[in-house]
Amino acid sequence: MNKSTVVPTDRPVHRSQLRVRYAETDRMGVAYYANYLIWFEVARTDFLREHGLRYRDLEARGHLLPVGTVDMRLVAPARYDDALHVDVWLEEARSRTITFAYIIGRNEETGRNTVIATGCTTLVAADEQLKPSALPADIRLRFRDLCGGES
Amino acid sequence: MNKSTVVPTDRPVHRSQLRVRYAETDRMGVAYYANYLIWFEVARTDFLREHGLRYRDLEARGHLLPVGTVDMRLVAPARYDDALHVDVWLEEARSRTITFAYIIGRNEETGRNTVIATGCTTLVAADEQLKPSALPADIRLRFRDLCGGES
Amino acid sequence: MNKSTVVPTDRPVHRSQLRVRYAETDRMGVAYYANYLIWFEVARTDFLREHGLRYRDLEARGHLLPVGTVDMRLVAPARYDDALHVDVWLEEARSRTITFAYIIGRNEETGRNTVIATGCTTLVAADEQLKPSALPADIRLRFRDLCGGES
Amino acid sequence: MNKSTVVPTDRPVHRSQLRVRYAETDRMGVAYYANYLIWFEVARTDFLREHGLRYRDLEARGHLLPVGTVDMRLVAPARYDDALHVDVWLEEARSRTITFAYIIGRNEETGRNTVIATGCTTLVAADEQLKPSALPADIRLRFRDLCGGES
Repeated sequence: MNKSTVVPTDRPVHRSQLRVRYAETDRMGVAYYANYLIWFEVARTDFLREHGLRYRDLEARGHLLPVGTVDMRLVAPARYDDALHVDVWLEEARSRTITFAYIIGRNEETGRNTVIATGCTTLVAADEQLKPSALPADIRLRFRDLCGGES
Repeated sequence: MNKSTVVPTDRPVHRSQLRVRYAETDRMGVAYYANYLIWFEVARTDFLREHGLRYRDLEARGHLLPVGTVDMRLVAPARYDDALHVDVWLEEARSRTITFAYIIGRNEETGRNTVIATGCTTLVAADEQLKPSALPADIRLRFRDLCGGES
Repeated sequence: MNKSTVVPTDRPVHRSQLRVRYAETDRMGVAYYANYLIWFEVARTDFLREHGLRYRDLEARGHLLPVGTVDMRLVAPARYDDALHVDVWLEEARSRTITFAYIIGRNEETGRNTVIATGCTTLVAADEQLKPSALPADIRLRFRDLCGGES
Repeated sequence: MNKSTVVPTDRPVHRSQLRVRYAETDRMGVAYYANYLIWFEVARTDFLREHGLRYRDLEARGHLLPVGTVDMRLVAPARYDDALHVDVWLEEARSRTITFAYIIGRNEETGRNTVIATGCTTLVAADEQLKPSALPADIRLRFRDLCGGES
């Protein structure tokens, strides 16, 4: 689990921006917890696009990345219309799984940054029938680069 | 638009039961309006299953029914944990479109029935590429029966 | 119902940008229809903010705008990762209801604009107990201005 | 994390039934991962109701239980119209946090049970301003009972 609340410095980190939708709130007046997983997805789609790896293209080539595990820690509530950011990076890349880590934050008017949530998701490389299937070599190489060249 | 708040007596009406999920509420403390469309979908899936026409089987045969138009009127708010029912029937069946109508209600502890919302959705017969495509004859016949044998 | 697929020229129109999330697709491979209502909400929140009327502030003053009616026509499917825009304007402003109209479109790489959906939603002015309640005079005046000064 | 795929025998386990909605699927043809968190919520609401502790009543008394942490492992895909069950129990009850564990399964026509996912969520006792706040004694006692009388 990504317990850290600071982003790594040895690999690329992408920051996605989003605003909490009314639809995403619940009667507690805050964003409902399942939406954090959607925001994680938006951020990793953006991360991949920024690095020239559109996930839609990966699927078009027959490679799917369904989610295998989720860990999440909710630190502070997010409210309707809050402008949030999601920092995302590739934590680990293996031949059959890749792990993204995330920190959701909110820039306060005071200039302070409030951590809203942290989490990580492990995706499993699969074919179109959702059977486990190693990623092609070129994609694996790119993912390895995005992990800081190691792992 | 289905402005009526009474179900028809000349054709089969199915009643689906559901309970408002916390996820479906918003900060107003009531069910967010987009969820009504999901409840409509649950009800028409149930309606079709009850009449021996599983929508998943229809899709397996290559026939899809994407939504073309939606009309909805929200009459009274629904709240978390409310036990609701959705009455659904086939309003009209044509060779390329079918129209479902819905009334969402809540049974109060007093025995009274509160209308929560009414609506109708027109679905368009399409092939797997989502191109308009007439439904097969056996399905059209079944749909016509479910409209009271006419139309 | 907003059957038009062109925006009006006699009043302010706001354009919101959004990208279709994976979460918003369904097994048909296209955006599930309930999400269009969420996109309408995102657009009207943006519209109000652009015109100095943050909806969160309106709620903080005790004025809620729950949705009363929805009309929507889905014209062409939207797919994962599509960059869409939502044009939104105030169609009508009355003392107890306001009506927004929307056109969702997609800019194609050819430069052509594809209409994805059109719709309108009528919101009902209510107090915090969701009882109908006229909007305050300053807000009504602003809404009237945004309708082109008339109505 | 609840890594076990068998329910405990020393405490009450509730089984909720649900059917995968079309809205819950994504373009991969399977249930989108955020929906598992919604199903967990449905199951724990049902669990509490079965044991005479309606969560809506708890909120009416001013006690909220926002989610603090989530762990989830997705084992097999769930598809549209699948009839699933969610087994849920109270894993741990402390004065300020309670932990629910879940196993989502599907009864196959062969009679075999397929595990779809496992997970656990820790909820944090809070007041209406979402500040941490110990649960009242009567509730804590009930929660302790539901954990098998210990912890």
